[in-house]
Amino acid sequence: MDRVKNVAVIGAGVIGGGWIARLVLNGINVEVYDHSESAQTNVDKSISNAKRAYEQLFSAELPDIGSLSFCSSVEEACRIAEVVIEAIPESLESKQSLFSEIESNTHKDTIITSSTSGILPSDLQLKMKRPGRLIVAHPFNPVYLLPLVELVAGKKTDKLVVDRSTEFFKSIGMFPLTVNKEIPAFIADRLLESVWREALWLVNDNVATTQQIDDAIRFGFGLRWAQMGLFETYRLAGGEAGMRHFISQFGPCLEWPWTHLVDVPEFTEELVNKIASQSDEQSSMYSFDELVRKRDDNLVDFISSLKDNNWGAGTTLKEHEKRLTEKAKSVLFEDRDFTKAIQTYSNTVPQKWVDYNGHMNESRYLECFSWATDNFMQIIGADSEYIKSGSSFFTVETHIRHLDEVHVRECVNVTTQLISVSGKKMQIFHRLFHEDGRLLATGEHMLLHVNLTTRSTSEPSKVITYRAESILDLHRMLPHPEGLGRSIGNKY
Amino acid sequence: MDRVKNVAVIGAGVIGGGWIARLVLNGINVEVYDHSESAQTNVDKSISNAKRAYEQLFSAELPDIGSLSFCSSVEEACRIAEVVIEAIPESLESKQSLFSEIESNTHKDTIITSSTSGILPSDLQLKMKRPGRLIVAHPFNPVYLLPLVELVAGKKTDKLVVDRSTEFFKSIGMFPLTVNKEIPAFIADRLLESVWREALWLVNDNVATTQQIDDAIRFGFGLRWAQMGLFETYRLAGGEAGMRHFISQFGPCLEWPWTHLVDVPEFTEELVNKIASQSDEQSSMYSFDELVRKRDDNLVDFISSLKDNNWGAGTTLKEHEKRLTEKAKSVLFEDRDFTKAIQTYSNTVPQKWVDYNGHMNESRYLECFSWATDNFMQIIGADSEYIKSGSSFFTVETHIRHLDEVHVRECVNVTTQLISVSGKKMQIFHRLFHEDGRLLATGEHMLLHVNLTTRSTSEPSKVITYRAESILDLHRMLPHPEGLGRSIGNKY
Repeated sequence: MDRVKNVAVIGAGVIGGGWIARLVLNGINVEVYDHSESAQTNVDKSISNAKRAYEQLFSAELPDIGSLSFCSSVEEACRIAEVVIEAIPESLESKQSLFSEIESNTHKDTIITSSTSGILPSDLQLKMKRPGRLIVAHPFNPVYLLPLVELVAGKKTDKLVVDRSTEFFKSIGMFPLTVNKEIPAFIADRLLESVWREALWLVNDNVATTQQIDDAIRFGFGLRWAQMGLFETYRLAGGEAGMRHFISQFGPCLEWPWTHLVDVPEFTEELVNKIASQSDEQSSMYSFDELVRKRDDNLVDFISSLKDNNWGAGTTLKEHEKRLTEKAKSVLFEDRDFTKAIQTYSNTVPQKWVDYNGHMNESRYLECFSWATDNFMQIIGADSEYIKSGSSFFTVETHIRHLDEVHVRECVNVTTQLISVSGKKMQIFHRLFHEDGRLLATGEHMLLHVNLTTRSTSEPSKVITYRAESILDLHRMLPHPEGLGRSIGNKY
Repeated sequence: MDRVKNVAVIGAGVIGGGWIARLVLNGINVEVYDHSESAQTNVDKSISNAKRAYEQLFSAELPDIGSLSFCSSVEEACRIAEVVIEAIPESLESKQSLFSEIESNTHKDTIITSSTSGILPSDLQLKMKRPGRLIVAHPFNPVYLLPLVELVAGKKTDKLVVDRSTEFFKSIGMFPLTVNKEIPAFIADRLLESVWREALWLVNDNVATTQQIDDAIRFGFGLRWAQMGLFETYRLAGGEAGMRHFISQFGPCLEWPWTHLVDVPEFTEELVNKIASQSDEQSSMYSFDELVRKRDDNLVDFISSLKDNNWGAGTTLKEHEKRLTEKAKSVLFEDRDFTKAIQTYSNTVPQKWVDYNGHMNESRYLECFSWATDNFMQIIGADSEYIKSGSSFFTVETHIRHLDEVHVRECVNVTTQLISVSGKKMQIFHRLFHEDGRLLATGEHMLLHVNLTTRSTSEPSKVITYRAESILDLHRMLPHPEGLGRSIGNKY
């Protein structure tokens, strides 16, 4: 499948808004249809939350943001779409009639996906003329951050459509999970529903409040499930004897009368009131927006940690970033402009970079410079392949002037000027700027080229030397940076 | 309750071993009874995994490790215990007879807790002479990392025992959740059991493999549950209209026939084989120990992020660290030895500090120095209260010599030498050492005292000036640090 450029999203509630944010931030043009008045506000908010999260989540550069337009009909929204995503409320009839409308307004190869959390794709296909191109793609809120999308083919779904949608969802950073068999509620929502049902009983019977149930999850097994799920966790609970031992130990408990198996609590006005008021007591100290940001900050940190640990949702991010970086690499060394200091880093200051003085901690200044050095290294050819081949540059000395403060959620960027190159030695000078133009800090660094096997200094490759010298020829003409060569204590 | 010093643990499997690790690392002496041969190995492993995790998790200093002894009888183990923790397999009869044995061998005020995941405390109390002191304290694997412990009182449990055990579990860094009503399986395991049952059906019916089920959790709602649980998550899924709207939208789905309500799948040899072999396929590329470490690394990172974001399990850690720090603060300024450079930081290098060169990233050198500066500030009186009162020191210049490499899981420590103090200015010199004694880096820093309201320089308090000058009087006599006052480029 060629890279998808145009997608239509029908329905812009919480799920539709999440789809739209993920799509445009991944460089895809989106046409939206939703007749409700709040749609545009809702989508704007979703995009701004997603931007805020992505700025913290991604170290790779994201593509230019896709265009977004609101259309006045399904027909208009679908006109040029290569993929149409349905995200309207759960009603078989409305979905079926929407798919008929979509069908008659799209190219025959356009993929149509449904965000339904439980309806069978075969039922959704019933009234379609070309049912082969419909597939369920069930995402999870917040759609712009959670990688999971369950792909469920109906009886008539083309095999090719499964493959093409798998590719497509991967290309926007998701983890498509193809469900083997078509069953109502698929996998995740069956699990969720069983918990939801049990939780309702616990509230109904005054065993626990909504807060206590949430605490029982997030201080305990929730922390396990963010990384391993159910079976892998239990594998470890069985000790070294593993899964078989676990089952022999805990399997029989299943036959104890622990859960409410048969009944569903009735949603009386009383029960709804109880849940709603307990939920208010638990969460209403935060506004909706604050709570969304808290959730997103935590998700960003979890996924980032998992990336560091090469695990689960973190590997999905890693692969997506790799894809993005390969695309970005297309700027050739020869095409770059070295008549100025080089833009080597930009980022938004995340909460965790801020210390008790209410500003970005001193060590994060060096972190920014370290990322900038990495990027500069890639430009001169000391990239991951070069490192694999057994050589790299190590920083041996650093001098930072912390000139001004920067606060959470403000943007910073770094420019890099090459000062000297001589055999194994390279001296660079970074400047950290605030988005408003203020100079926040300077970083002067001496690097040595090292053989990674012997861990001792060695000569860099000819390509690197050539590139570094080419840059130096131009950077030599730039003004001498203020503060260069300073030592501590010769001012104040 | 006075601080508990001695605890007996009966049963040293996965759960008992986890209890023991948490206890000894929190400075409590533990006497263990477990007749199985593997108990000692199991406990050693648990402690070594817990140590590894705690070194990364805690920035506060932990108390001296408690003593550990293996006893040859329940009687011997319980002799001086203030709390006895039962962690034997789930059998009402064995637990009842164990509690009789414990009762007759402990002081009447000793608290007895059961780790049962489902048996009613009232049933456990049935044959006890003093049932008032028994309470269920149900922990979650890995016990040394997950903060949740469900406290469930039986009909005869003393109110005071609930309070005292709450205090005790908080003192070892846990989050005690008191369950309102005594029901089988309490809260968390009722939820878990409903998921487990549904998951077994999905495997049994070939809808999904164990891997797919785990992926459906950890790439999706598992990431939400590590921080918010069920209700708070759904509050957000309802959009700004909140919980009531969510229920009106999704409540009715509950009456759809989505889950296997009534039946429990039978554990035929075939089903057990299927699960065990799918689980092998999913996880056997990692050894048990590797998988435990992966899990622990992820948990450490999640809990650390939550601490940064002041949320959920992270606040539990934060409060525990505060408690630990207050204890550690008891060293008076007057009692400190300033005839040498001051020990201001020690830590183990976590995985996420390591970069593509396979060693601790340059910016983490400054992070170590930054923590050391913070600690030095506390020693001279520029602590959190001082900062609250409106003043602080800001680093304005930094010079680092990166002299040697350090790798993941190696220990580092920092000493701090005061170089000069003059009104608003303070110059300090840090040395970062490897645990083997090698000097890894030096950090020279100029700090200025700042009024946090005007953000401009100001005079420090008299106490701070007095303390800094007292230290300087002694540090002046130390040898002049090599590299002091250096600038970049005057060597190599």
